Amino acid sequence: MNIIEIIEKKKKGESLTKQEIEWFIDRVVNGSIPDYQTSALLMAICLKGMDKRETTDLALAMAHSGDMFDMSAIGCVVLDKHSTGGVGDKTSLIVGPVMAALGVPVGKMSGRGLGITGGTIDKLDAIPGFSSDLSDEKFMECLKASGFVDAAQTKNLAPADKVLYALRDVTGTVDSIPLIASSIMSKKLASGADAIVLDVKCGNGAFMNDLDSAKQLAETMIDIGNGAGRKCSAVISDMNEPLGYTVGNLLEVKEAVDFLKGVNVNSRLYDLVLTICSEMYILSGRPELNGIDSKERLIRFAKQIVKDVLANGDAYKSFLMFVKGQGGETDFIENELSMDYENIIPSDVMSTDVKAEKDGYISAIRADITGRASMHLGAGRMELDDEIDQYAGVYLKKKIGDEVKAGDVIATLYSSDKDKMNDGVKIFKEAVTITTEKEQVQDGDIIVQIQRFN
Amino acid sequence: MNIIEIIEKKKKGESLTKQEIEWFIDRVVNGSIPDYQTSALLMAICLKGMDKRETTDLALAMAHSGDMFDMSAIGCVVLDKHSTGGVGDKTSLIVGPVMAALGVPVGKMSGRGLGITGGTIDKLDAIPGFSSDLSDEKFMECLKASGFVDAAQTKNLAPADKVLYALRDVTGTVDSIPLIASSIMSKKLASGADAIVLDVKCGNGAFMNDLDSAKQLAETMIDIGNGAGRKCSAVISDMNEPLGYTVGNLLEVKEAVDFLKGVNVNSRLYDLVLTICSEMYILSGRPELNGIDSKERLIRFAKQIVKDVLANGDAYKSFLMFVKGQGGETDFIENELSMDYENIIPSDVMSTDVKAEKDGYISAIRADITGRASMHLGAGRMELDDEIDQYAGVYLKKKIGDEVKAGDVIATLYSSDKDKMNDGVKIFKEAVTITTEKEQVQDGDIIVQIQRFN
Repeated sequence: MNIIEIIEKKKKGESLTKQEIEWFIDRVVNGSIPDYQTSALLMAICLKGMDKRETTDLALAMAHSGDMFDMSAIGCVVLDKHSTGGVGDKTSLIVGPVMAALGVPVGKMSGRGLGITGGTIDKLDAIPGFSSDLSDEKFMECLKASGFVDAAQTKNLAPADKVLYALRDVTGTVDSIPLIASSIMSKKLASGADAIVLDVKCGNGAFMNDLDSAKQLAETMIDIGNGAGRKCSAVISDMNEPLGYTVGNLLEVKEAVDFLKGVNVNSRLYDLVLTICSEMYILSGRPELNGIDSKERLIRFAKQIVKDVLANGDAYKSFLMFVKGQGGETDFIENELSMDYENIIPSDVMSTDVKAEKDGYISAIRADITGRASMHLGAGRMELDDEIDQYAGVYLKKKIGDEVKAGDVIATLYSSDKDKMNDGVKIFKEAVTITTEKEQVQDGDIIVQIQRFN
Repeated sequence: MNIIEIIEKKKKGESLTKQEIEWFIDRVVNGSIPDYQTSALLMAICLKGMDKRETTDLALAMAHSGDMFDMSAIGCVVLDKHSTGGVGDKTSLIVGPVMAALGVPVGKMSGRGLGITGGTIDKLDAIPGFSSDLSDEKFMECLKASGFVDAAQTKNLAPADKVLYALRDVTGTVDSIPLIASSIMSKKLASGADAIVLDVKCGNGAFMNDLDSAKQLAETMIDIGNGAGRKCSAVISDMNEPLGYTVGNLLEVKEAVDFLKGVNVNSRLYDLVLTICSEMYILSGRPELNGIDSKERLIRFAKQIVKDVLANGDAYKSFLMFVKGQGGETDFIENELSMDYENIIPSDVMSTDVKAEKDGYISAIRADITGRASMHLGAGRMELDDEIDQYAGVYLKKKIGDEVKAGDVIATLYSSDKDKMNDGVKIFKEAVTITTEKEQVQDGDIIVQIQRFN
């Protein structure tokens, strides 16, 4: 085999064989293919695409380029949930404990935030004592004990993806569905869950701006999952507005804790949690689901069970167990985070209220711009080694569709740095549009649900 | 400006501005754009193309990336002739002296051979004493004195092309008409001639295998030439069979000298020389052409004048002046090269006759395979720093369409190395097909003539 022949083949739009894909990925990882050849192939893939079989082979080759984590010792179906990245997306912090309370183990490896998108690991770091750097043994121990574990991805999880991702970022080859799907799924396959529910974000704050691309990405990832022998389904959810009320690390943990306690629950976030958790429950194949013959009844049954563990406090208890399992201070969750937002944030952190400049209705709080504002406030990273300000972020007091009077507080912004606060406020103001007439607002957060089982 | 934005733009199939192209080429030459970004852009250009304006801007930016040679001191239109590369193509050695004899100066810079294609400079090196490494002053002096000069391309002629060409070669981005056309034309524009006749080869031994691609390449190069203010026309000529009787360095010089003396003239080569020289003559805009009003009469007039200088020996005399001007031994041309082939080749160089294995007609002597045989015999280079065997090559005694009896010599092969001889013979035998019935043979060498003046 020969890299130039492989490039020429893809350039002509032909399918690469499994052998060619594995040969390429092997050499990407051992460094024997120069970057200029890899980037030429990536561009050819961007422009000529990859079919379902090729994309699955690529994801599998990338997954097998490093350690393949094995969770079979748990003895039942272990679930994973993945979001393609959104603004204010604290769903994983809620979904994990809900599933644990239902007796469905969730073993998850998460990333850190980059750009406008937050990362679950950064959010969890805001809990004193919490550790996301777990050994394989500790990971399995936590999973067994709490039913939910969320650890930072290890260095050797899909190393081929790290090389390709870094190169795609600087060669204009990011927006290719086969490359995005295989990048995400390689890590999911390597991290070892038996079944995966994917939350594909769609809108201005997401990688996929339109519904067609989001559907294509969802279908491609499901194809990869099924092709690799994993159960898989996907939800496509709106990301034109930040999810819930908060954007920022500690702020989002606080909102998740409130949510689990039934306090200040955002209805869109509630709908999304219900949808994802019921999907996960169905994929778990629990014995109590046997005999429910219609899909509709299955979903209704699953949603009711999820509502119950949220209402009776079991999900919140699971959250405390999860935090404790990974060394986090449950006192902090129980006492500090039960206070109001203003009392949680230390006094040396600045806060600024952004107010409505006129009477009317909120017709837009753009997710992308809010994410950028939050990043500038200090909640996110522009470069991978930037420091995170765990208190920084945006607390939305109003959401799209709300009526406002001039002077009403739309959001409170937090930052530990004066210049960053100025930048953040300036940017956030651009995110908000107030119109005099109430505009038609899309109802509920979930746009489409794609379901496929293997 | 930003290279990632430029890559993304081309990836979407948009046109790059002149400023973007110049910015890119500047940075390619100063090394500030990493190869992996350049190769991603090259692949996007391969797959999304470039329009006429972009291709001209690219060729001009590449030309201006190094020295722009100025021949205006000659005081009249200086011509250039370029072949896209063929097997046995000794046309330049004949065309230059013909034009000089007609009083039309030809100032040419040529390359060395690589792969199956020979290079004029390697051929000229077979003449004892001949120097192709000329200073700018010496180049102009030779051009003034002999009316024809052919020098090796200097290091600083279109340096951007050198970088891009090396990268294209290893990233599967060679076969793109805008990239091929701008590569060729950048060197032609930088080497300073006022008018250029292009000989676009088409067939198995050429870069362009089919007539449509050859036409597209010809039109694109003419567009670039005209866009850069040069007169330009193109001929598309057959390269399914080697041109003339010889392939190899000294062998081709011998054939060119014979041709200029009217000895052993191959009819296809004669037709091609006539076509190219008459085009060059017309482009020269010589005063004697004024008043000839129809294109047909112009061509007939020009062809007659070319025939005359070939017949009366003036072209041969110009060749001797050209050789003498660049330090070559004219005695060698006049005495040694007037002997038969077998007497020119030293006795320590091996020769092998390849004979017909059956009675019939020669239906194929594939140019590509003959070129490869010649390269393996030692006449060409596989790598840029390989040594050339000036005596090595193929002397064809039969051409396509000729009748043969079993045992007739089809070709004599020469090499100074036994292993190389074995390889060359083995390869050359694959080039030849003998059929029992005479096949329809394409009549004449020139397929298409594309003419455009600026």
